[in-house]
Amino acid sequence: MTARPDADSSIERTLDVIGDRWTMLILRDVFRGLHRFGELVDSLGIARNLLSERLARLVEHEVLVKVPYCERPLRHEYRLTPKGADLSRALVALMRWGDRWESDGTAPTVLVHERCGVELELELRCPTCDTDVRPAHVRSRPGSPS
Amino acid sequence: MTARPDADSSIERTLDVIGDRWTMLILRDVFRGLHRFGELVDSLGIARNLLSERLARLVEHEVLVKVPYCERPLRHEYRLTPKGADLSRALVALMRWGDRWESDGTAPTVLVHERCGVELELELRCPTCDTDVRPAHVRSRPGSPS
Repeated sequence: MTARPDADSSIERTLDVIGDRWTMLILRDVFRGLHRFGELVDSLGIARNLLSERLARLVEHEVLVKVPYCERPLRHEYRLTPKGADLSRALVALMRWGDRWESDGTAPTVLVHERCGVELELELRCPTCDTDVRPAHVRSRPGSPS
Repeated sequence: MTARPDADSSIERTLDVIGDRWTMLILRDVFRGLHRFGELVDSLGIARNLLSERLARLVEHEVLVKVPYCERPLRHEYRLTPKGADLSRALVALMRWGDRWESDGTAPTVLVHERCGVELELELRCPTCDTDVRPAHVRSRPGSPS
């Protein structure tokens, strides 16, 4: 990739929202199907005040939304918004890197296509050339205003 | 994705290595072509002791390697190892999410295919069905031992 002074400031903005270790682990657990405060406390071993603070921040940034699941007493659970669900590729990328470089050679979990059961690959794809593009063949250029 | 208790422990192992905000920003800058201690200090405005500590940790985990660029006086710069370069997809995923959800509607930088100049997409791809798989059609299963 070509060096440009402001090239990746979107990474910085992303990290402002989710670049905290507890926040990433909370999101991992919500993607895995844990939606309630108590489930997250049990899974992560996180202090309740830290979890409250992280969840409030994710709701404020519209990554999670509070949805009532019980009327009396009123109880909420946390669900991914479309913005939150769109983090799936980033979480998959982090998971695949851990599989490849930080495990003992086994992937604890592989992601497969529901229809055929074949393991999925994360690719940087060129829609015109219909090919997976290696990092050495990626260039960057300024984006256009919308 | 299906919930499994140990499903994404690779994410946790990844975060153990790179899940620190300064560490991610250092890696972003190294991907952008900044390799020297002073360049990183200037770019990030990070305290020198914090930068030293993060760089030492990245070298210890074989994400970066110290390469001499001057003999007298002896000076080193920091280069990505193959393990470090393999983080490109994760950084691209974080950048694309920031473009989509945390910018004012403009992508500061787009990544394009060197050969044709067309903007690249990050896809979860099924090699058998030759298609981009939507998150709703992803399942997880335990990986096989190597």
